Amino acid sequence: MADFLTKKEENYAQWYNDLVIKADLAENSAVRGCMVIKPYGYAIWERIQAELDKLFKATGHQNAYFPLLIPKSYFSKEASHVEGFAKECAVVTHYRLMKDPSGEGVIVDPSAKLEEELIIRPTSETIIWNTIKNWIHSYRDLPLLINQWANVVRWEMRTRLFLRTSEFLWQEGHTAHATSEEAEEETRKIVELYAHFVQDFMGIPVLKGSKSDSERFAGAVTTYAIEALMQDGKSLQTGTSHFLGQNFAKAFDVQFTSKAGNLEYVWSTSWGVSTRLMGALVMAHGDNEGLVLPPNLAPIQVVIIPIYKGNSELANISATALEIKTKLEARGLSVKYDDRDTHKPGFKFAEYELKGVPVRIAIGPRDIENGTVEIARRDTLVKSVVSREVVADEVQNLLKDIQQNIFSRALKIREENTHTVNSWDEFREIIENKGGFVLAHWDGTADTEERIKDETKATIRVIPLDTDPEAGKCVYSGKPSKQRVVFARAY
Amino acid sequence: MADFLTKKEENYAQWYNDLVIKADLAENSAVRGCMVIKPYGYAIWERIQAELDKLFKATGHQNAYFPLLIPKSYFSKEASHVEGFAKECAVVTHYRLMKDPSGEGVIVDPSAKLEEELIIRPTSETIIWNTIKNWIHSYRDLPLLINQWANVVRWEMRTRLFLRTSEFLWQEGHTAHATSEEAEEETRKIVELYAHFVQDFMGIPVLKGSKSDSERFAGAVTTYAIEALMQDGKSLQTGTSHFLGQNFAKAFDVQFTSKAGNLEYVWSTSWGVSTRLMGALVMAHGDNEGLVLPPNLAPIQVVIIPIYKGNSELANISATALEIKTKLEARGLSVKYDDRDTHKPGFKFAEYELKGVPVRIAIGPRDIENGTVEIARRDTLVKSVVSREVVADEVQNLLKDIQQNIFSRALKIREENTHTVNSWDEFREIIENKGGFVLAHWDGTADTEERIKDETKATIRVIPLDTDPEAGKCVYSGKPSKQRVVFARAY
Repeated sequence: MADFLTKKEENYAQWYNDLVIKADLAENSAVRGCMVIKPYGYAIWERIQAELDKLFKATGHQNAYFPLLIPKSYFSKEASHVEGFAKECAVVTHYRLMKDPSGEGVIVDPSAKLEEELIIRPTSETIIWNTIKNWIHSYRDLPLLINQWANVVRWEMRTRLFLRTSEFLWQEGHTAHATSEEAEEETRKIVELYAHFVQDFMGIPVLKGSKSDSERFAGAVTTYAIEALMQDGKSLQTGTSHFLGQNFAKAFDVQFTSKAGNLEYVWSTSWGVSTRLMGALVMAHGDNEGLVLPPNLAPIQVVIIPIYKGNSELANISATALEIKTKLEARGLSVKYDDRDTHKPGFKFAEYELKGVPVRIAIGPRDIENGTVEIARRDTLVKSVVSREVVADEVQNLLKDIQQNIFSRALKIREENTHTVNSWDEFREIIENKGGFVLAHWDGTADTEERIKDETKATIRVIPLDTDPEAGKCVYSGKPSKQRVVFARAY
Repeated sequence: MADFLTKKEENYAQWYNDLVIKADLAENSAVRGCMVIKPYGYAIWERIQAELDKLFKATGHQNAYFPLLIPKSYFSKEASHVEGFAKECAVVTHYRLMKDPSGEGVIVDPSAKLEEELIIRPTSETIIWNTIKNWIHSYRDLPLLINQWANVVRWEMRTRLFLRTSEFLWQEGHTAHATSEEAEEETRKIVELYAHFVQDFMGIPVLKGSKSDSERFAGAVTTYAIEALMQDGKSLQTGTSHFLGQNFAKAFDVQFTSKAGNLEYVWSTSWGVSTRLMGALVMAHGDNEGLVLPPNLAPIQVVIIPIYKGNSELANISATALEIKTKLEARGLSVKYDDRDTHKPGFKFAEYELKGVPVRIAIGPRDIENGTVEIARRDTLVKSVVSREVVADEVQNLLKDIQQNIFSRALKIREENTHTVNSWDEFREIIENKGGFVLAHWDGTADTEERIKDETKATIRVIPLDTDPEAGKCVYSGKPSKQRVVFARAY
């Protein structure tokens, strides 16, 4: 099974692509840049959705649904938004097909041209603000805390499964507040929520911070992001949260009557994570045997495989296996018993390793005699034999341990690949040869940022939150700097 | 609150529209025919999704996700499918906008024209079959049981919130089988699953049956449907399940190696329900006070409202209210305590009646003294006073009773509005003046069906399953008929 995978040390990009396809997560479709998310991949996405949705609802957000199609003119309403989003997008111009009069097949009916073209949403700020302005009248209607789970389309030229696709699935939060402070607080609350999710569910450590002006969301005052380091030393942005100030409120005329009786523009935020998280999950933990899924998100947490010759041995083992399955399920665990007779145990072992199932239990005739089972953990591939009586406790502890271990392992990799750098030579050397996060002083100008990017392909991933400011000199220009920022090459 | 509603006896269509909007379920968007599903409406849809999804998974189906955009040429591959679906649809012709060189705003970049136009999926058979043909090699890969939750677009000319919108949300099941029998069995299993859901969760009785040739899904061999009678005597199709034979398998060349070693085309099915179910929920149970939601799907099953003067009374009542809330939640019920001081109890009563919350608990100072609460049920608006000790039991029983009662009530309405008819005069008279379901003999020809539709606007809703065939003469043509079919005017 794993023989089909390119070794990650040989060609990381190819390893990633192989793994996504071989583990049945996703595949390219016949439509340029659009992927098909296969059942196993979708089951992981459903787990991500379920847990995030709980966190959103627990913080007072409500789901709603807004139209897929947005009138073209809406994109012109917020000046910088149009720059960022009205470019590479799918444009609907007609609403009917007809039989081709000159032959087989269908053609676009030229008479069915829309008066105004519609854009498939690349993000929904414009249509949402145009809608919810009617929902907000007074301060009593605030805060308005909305989330939408949806598909969006951005016409990407170079695509990679999960990491960059023309259509992707995501959630987009959109909130309105009475004051700037409340909106900023919401923006940061969501950064913390995302960081909690990525760290404690996905098992991936993240850096939190704000973005430089040039990496900011089109239409935002401040963009916060979480960034995670992948095993190849490149950074992946795994979530963003934008403080939009009054930009969209002014563009769409969203005003409310304040407690003091004044008419004021609302303050707003937007934030999102996408199926890109699936890419992070693969790249942060995967190895040359396949996926390594965090127990907190694995659709199958435990697989039980019988090792037998003949039906009577199988019947015996199955009785024990199903008993263990029931015990584990009673503890809320997701368990699969794979007694297919079309595949040998070795094949199954490799298959579930490829698919990243955290714990494998194997039961053979000797185990039945001895009252034991063999437990293998996916993260370390270490096996142990335990008594059948304690198997439920063992598995439950093991799942917790795996969740913790993959986070620690990823954190260790990040620490080993985070470099504090004080000279331009050192900066270039590390970016070029080692990769990882580089903490360096920057003079705060877009010009310097651009030059660094041109020369090294490294960008400012975040201006860290919660770090003590430390004055210094820009690693590139030598001009004064207030704090170190995090550079890396990124996906 | 309910004063804003048109009376349903006066103008049913207006009552429906008022109710959808006033109860915060949905509203029209600025985009022609596309609706915004508001948080309360979406919460009901999420309940529908959650319960259906469980039923699909319990019957072995897996979710996946396929592209939103489908190449135009795919629609020509299945001959009758193109007739049905390649007509009124949203066509993407370009992939970029640019600044308008002659002024403000953006225009479509004429140089960014797609080589082949893409259609926003009106349904996904074509893209799915084009994809999963690569997933199927041998009989071991069958059955393949896939479901997708997605948005689809059909360019409808006349739209109504939930009932007919250009964009709607739905689930579409797509399955592949080794034999015709298995595929037919799946098709019928899904009809039963849908009927179970609509009857036991939505509380709406349905008729199950097959469709006549002219009402069949474009590309199907047989279409089964469930039909429900609304309070105005019109029928609403609430779910369809299609036996596709080998039509799509042949169109997309989906073959497998059978057990006997032969290369054969697979047999397939597709089936779906949509946000149309929301319309059914409103129309089947609603009254002049608002929605009447079935407890099995209500986002809020119980609301508790304090009746108080001053803060010390409120504090007292709140303590009791929260104790009751905790007790009810421990039984898995969804409970809201509404202690807003911005609205009076009477306003809140009307609001939750409008929103269809099944059970309301009111607690005043007298209740605190007496150790009682007042319970009101939404379906009958009957109130009763019960002792605080038994409130959890009472509420739980009441919710079961309401679920049962709204089904019985809808069934009674259907029975009262189902007419067995033997003459054409009688047929016309009933369709014209009473509405409802008309059971009549039909000669089985599309011609007669068409004439009946032209003369009365009634169509064949279903050819019932599981009824004893009863020979007779066609109510229109007098020609022989094998069984009665169900006619009605329909949404």
